[in-house]
Amino acid sequence: MNNFIFQNPTKLVFGKGQISRLPQLIPAGRKIMVTYGGGSVKANGIYDQVCAALQGMDYIEFWGIEPNPTVETLRKAIAIGKERGIDFLLAVGGGSVLDGTKLIASAMVYDGDPWEIVTQGKASGAIPYASVMTLPATGSEMNSGAVISRTETKEKFAFYTSYPQFSILDPEATYTLPDNQIAAALADIFVHVMEQYLTTTGQSRVMDRWAEGLLMTVIEIAPKIKENRHDYDLMCDFMLTATLALNDFIRMGISEDWATHMIGHELTALHGITHGASLAIVLPGTMKVLREQKKGKILQYGERVWGIDRGTEQERVKAAIEKTEGFFRSLGLDTRLGQAGIGDRTIDEIQARFERLGLSLGEGGNVTGKVAADILRSCK
Amino acid sequence: MNNFIFQNPTKLVFGKGQISRLPQLIPAGRKIMVTYGGGSVKANGIYDQVCAALQGMDYIEFWGIEPNPTVETLRKAIAIGKERGIDFLLAVGGGSVLDGTKLIASAMVYDGDPWEIVTQGKASGAIPYASVMTLPATGSEMNSGAVISRTETKEKFAFYTSYPQFSILDPEATYTLPDNQIAAALADIFVHVMEQYLTTTGQSRVMDRWAEGLLMTVIEIAPKIKENRHDYDLMCDFMLTATLALNDFIRMGISEDWATHMIGHELTALHGITHGASLAIVLPGTMKVLREQKKGKILQYGERVWGIDRGTEQERVKAAIEKTEGFFRSLGLDTRLGQAGIGDRTIDEIQARFERLGLSLGEGGNVTGKVAADILRSCK
Repeated sequence: MNNFIFQNPTKLVFGKGQISRLPQLIPAGRKIMVTYGGGSVKANGIYDQVCAALQGMDYIEFWGIEPNPTVETLRKAIAIGKERGIDFLLAVGGGSVLDGTKLIASAMVYDGDPWEIVTQGKASGAIPYASVMTLPATGSEMNSGAVISRTETKEKFAFYTSYPQFSILDPEATYTLPDNQIAAALADIFVHVMEQYLTTTGQSRVMDRWAEGLLMTVIEIAPKIKENRHDYDLMCDFMLTATLALNDFIRMGISEDWATHMIGHELTALHGITHGASLAIVLPGTMKVLREQKKGKILQYGERVWGIDRGTEQERVKAAIEKTEGFFRSLGLDTRLGQAGIGDRTIDEIQARFERLGLSLGEGGNVTGKVAADILRSCK
Repeated sequence: MNNFIFQNPTKLVFGKGQISRLPQLIPAGRKIMVTYGGGSVKANGIYDQVCAALQGMDYIEFWGIEPNPTVETLRKAIAIGKERGIDFLLAVGGGSVLDGTKLIASAMVYDGDPWEIVTQGKASGAIPYASVMTLPATGSEMNSGAVISRTETKEKFAFYTSYPQFSILDPEATYTLPDNQIAAALADIFVHVMEQYLTTTGQSRVMDRWAEGLLMTVIEIAPKIKENRHDYDLMCDFMLTATLALNDFIRMGISEDWATHMIGHELTALHGITHGASLAIVLPGTMKVLREQKKGKILQYGERVWGIDRGTEQERVKAAIEKTEGFFRSLGLDTRLGQAGIGDRTIDEIQARFERLGLSLGEGGNVTGKVAADILRSCK
């Protein structure tokens, strides 16, 4: 196990009716900007609950942070925030609204263009911010990362900043999510865990067990959510699993991968594919192309998560990859590039972009443009 | 799932050589009291590492916090701390040293007798404190609880205060632990998890999986530690599992039990039995007496943790309890009161003490003095 330092200060406020705690959670006397995406929070009643809770407090609203939030949109919020002297941000929505808000919070104490924060990879500071999370998927509610897109150059990168002061998670907010968002969210959660799990074996027994526990939970709840998304306890599991999949709890002292995410980001940047959906296409390919390097962990994953304990090593590896792709298909997601209308030109372009940036990703640092192209070709 | 608020601000600094980070971790300008137990930290080199790291800082040492720390000893440290204007505490040792230090930290901002803090159950404040943890067991390094004894009345109770600012965990510190301490530590970790797990089924799939993951880890590492306690990665698993077993991570939104601990505390208070060893005696008894109430979870535990999937429900419950007692025996611990020289008189006394205090413990609030006595009689 590697040496590590862990500290996650975010206060998690979980359960039905918790939005009413906002007045106790936001420090007194703040000038608040509440950030929103489109209008779904008006349809599901969250907006009304937030307005009721904030009554009498000094706040303005910023609307229109889009899925895969763009620096172009966020620049507008930052300009308003600086002009009005905003000193607290409250993101109300899904991971995109919160990721965008993380860039606003960081840019409030930065003089240059906010895209510089993204390309530097790490903010030098941020004003306090918090969230009311309505879509369990990205884990953004309890971590310091955010992914921002730049429309003009079709780029999409992650950066890191401070943690949210608090995040309110009310599972009832998920009752009205559309099918495709739930499917993409479940894939996103699953792949978050895999990026921290599908690496060298034997690094940490307990981190392995916890990652496997999250994967088994996602596999167990996915078909039940399809049947009934008004089962409160079920949606609690959905929401909590999303948070625990990417809040530093399962990456203590171990190596990570993230090549699948980086390749998926390219598909989103170039073709607008939903983040979780892009991962469902790429992960099986990553497993196929890196099957020798990742053999030990794929075998462990197959046995513990899917109960695959018969056949040769090669057969068991193949079965584990098929189970993974089958799980994504069971969610209703495409798992092949052809289904999404993506061909060789995009693969070549992604290879060229990786090579231009000199990228060499993954746990082993061996996922170059060439390997990324191999992975994508195996997903055709 | 119940509504819950989770926030654990402790910084975990994990790995070999991390003690040298003390100067960066302790805020500048503090008047520090470093608290110790007996002399084991001198034998294993930890004391020298701490002294080297603190060179040039303003600190005094307090020695002699005993296993099952007593308010009588701690009153002396509190008097010295107040006299010298101490404003930072660093506990160096195992859970007892840290638990004692939590009472010192809390009493530094309290005017009355420190035992009042313990009987009130919750401190009203505390000065900042931190730890260098040398014995993985209690989880005290990343939680807000502490258990304090009072010699004159043979009492032992838990109270809650603030969280440690940071805790340094160097697995190499465990290489020199004696067999009996390791055995008691493993039992303590195991039972911490069981207190949060062996309750009503179906409360949270992910909390169940994580608890089961910790239990499986303890079961897997225990015999290996017996073979070779100089395997660094193995001792990493030991140390990290202890922390994760009792740092609020596996109790989100679920009910808990803790009757076994309360009964075990009585055995320690009356007979001086090591904490972990007392739990190894009581837990199988709790499972036997409450087997109907806890049947659903015992069956799940038996199947997922021990692979017990054959036989009638009654047979599987029995097998799961036997596996549990067998695990404690495999550690080299006594699992029967008779082995520890404890008979009916103690059982009667514990029943009387429970009844005098009007205690009614456990998840169901039904572990009265009478039930506690039944549990103890089943452990004869």
